[in-house]
Amino acid sequence: MANIQEVAQKAGVSVATVSRVLNQHPAVTAKTKLKVETAIKELNYEPSMLGRNLRNSESRLLLVLIPTISNPFYTEIINGIEDTAIMNDYNILLCDTDSNPQRENIYFNMVKNKLADGIISMDPAVDMEKLNGLATQYPIIQCSEYDERGTIPYVTIDNKLAAYRAVKHLIKLGHEKIALINSDEKFLYARERRAGYEKALKEFGLPVQEKWIYHTHQLEFEYGQQAMKKLLQRDERPTAIFSVSDTLAIGALKEINAHGLNVPEDIAIVGFDKISFSNMTNPTLTTVSQPMYKMGCTAATMLIDKIQERQVESIILDHELVIRESTMG
Amino acid sequence: MANIQEVAQKAGVSVATVSRVLNQHPAVTAKTKLKVETAIKELNYEPSMLGRNLRNSESRLLLVLIPTISNPFYTEIINGIEDTAIMNDYNILLCDTDSNPQRENIYFNMVKNKLADGIISMDPAVDMEKLNGLATQYPIIQCSEYDERGTIPYVTIDNKLAAYRAVKHLIKLGHEKIALINSDEKFLYARERRAGYEKALKEFGLPVQEKWIYHTHQLEFEYGQQAMKKLLQRDERPTAIFSVSDTLAIGALKEINAHGLNVPEDIAIVGFDKISFSNMTNPTLTTVSQPMYKMGCTAATMLIDKIQERQVESIILDHELVIRESTMG
Repeated sequence: MANIQEVAQKAGVSVATVSRVLNQHPAVTAKTKLKVETAIKELNYEPSMLGRNLRNSESRLLLVLIPTISNPFYTEIINGIEDTAIMNDYNILLCDTDSNPQRENIYFNMVKNKLADGIISMDPAVDMEKLNGLATQYPIIQCSEYDERGTIPYVTIDNKLAAYRAVKHLIKLGHEKIALINSDEKFLYARERRAGYEKALKEFGLPVQEKWIYHTHQLEFEYGQQAMKKLLQRDERPTAIFSVSDTLAIGALKEINAHGLNVPEDIAIVGFDKISFSNMTNPTLTTVSQPMYKMGCTAATMLIDKIQERQVESIILDHELVIRESTMG
Repeated sequence: MANIQEVAQKAGVSVATVSRVLNQHPAVTAKTKLKVETAIKELNYEPSMLGRNLRNSESRLLLVLIPTISNPFYTEIINGIEDTAIMNDYNILLCDTDSNPQRENIYFNMVKNKLADGIISMDPAVDMEKLNGLATQYPIIQCSEYDERGTIPYVTIDNKLAAYRAVKHLIKLGHEKIALINSDEKFLYARERRAGYEKALKEFGLPVQEKWIYHTHQLEFEYGQQAMKKLLQRDERPTAIFSVSDTLAIGALKEINAHGLNVPEDIAIVGFDKISFSNMTNPTLTTVSQPMYKMGCTAATMLIDKIQERQVESIILDHELVIRESTMG
């Protein structure tokens, strides 16, 4: 049976173009589409990737490990991974690990058994020892969260700098009592964002007060509500909140409103991630924009490079502080 | 190598309990956990499902086809599917089809090639002819969306009745000018919800006005904003909105606020799904609660029954109208 290269050759286009036609990508002209479709017909090409690739021992499947599908932060990253994978004739399978080692094993075994060509891990709670072990033999990339001491290539942002900028923004607005809603500091991003928070406070001579630092176990809205409830009970109330995720920030905003207080007049809030919800709240949320889609594209490109035995290096992407109503009134 | 049944027997517990221990389920006592772990150790049992099942030609993997991971509606359903699958010693792979037939083919081929044991399809845009064809040979269940003329067992809610109740709630509050923000009526749920909307209007002698019915192509927030913008431009403005998804309703709410109007004083809103964010908006959203988690559990149970060649029948689950601030002031 013909392969995609032969179709591309016959149609006089690139393999990527054939892939775009197969995947009904909008950026293909009618003329090109017709050429490719004619070639497919003449060569009797059947784009059954799985069938084809079992024969040449490639699965053309990439596994994407996510800790939970409940956090919209992952959605945009996954869109980037998918688009890039498909452009390169790969498909992805999403593996919700629930940060559970037993589930991880299943997905690790898929790679060992050649049912998948590689892994992009976004799970901050992944078993790093196992992942590092697997990475000595199989293509693996970490996305967003990574192991500072490990050897697995990663794509991420500078979490410390981003947090520093967010908190500095609040200080510049005149805030001196700035609380931190953090997640579990067993995660690198949580430690880095706390470091950025402390750096900004110290630079402006503000004390780091433990009573204004709250840790949540999860990132769902309700945990942000609970964190804010506790912070509002402190003898001295903070006038601003820096939250390490938008979901927590949105919960905090809800709780502030429930107490009859206003954002940003009584308490200003900065979130993190720029999930799509963050623009739907009232007021809209000031937040650190992670280039999630680009991060996904980059991770997929890195993994495919790794699979195809090209050199891969870790990448730090830019972030941006998006100032909206929750700090500007 | 020992299997899970032998572990259960040795530990004097059920297979489900062993599965719970393996999956670190919280509802296991320390004593039971110890018994199971001792049995695992003594039998040298390795719960590598994939490895084990390649030998007996079961993959113990269930594929879950979703049209997009961007809609939180699917999140809770997937949690239900996962929990039930894992309790039964299965794992799931999420397949984001993007409603693209080429991508669907890949996943269909995984079942044909015995890399997965069955499929739960939640994609309203799935190629029904292919799915029906596949279902003659392989275990397939439809969840939420289904084919009224097909033979594939499904689990869903009564969409027409749910929409009827939502609109009746608005009529009972005194509204006579009720707009419908619907998605594409090529989808069964969209047709059924429109039928429920019309039924309620007709029952109370209210005319169905095309100018107050708006169709969106997608379900993201921005499409709800756009729909509302158009509805606010009508010569006669509606006083209430029934939206077929919470995401669209939340976009509409945002747009109403942007025009300096208040919800529910100027315009009341009812959404559909009860996604977690629907309780974070200001005002909170009245919505039709679908039993998403239960729907997921039911779909998984049905698929496993089908795989194990037990009789499976379609199921209609109950829904509930959750009245919150967006209609109650």
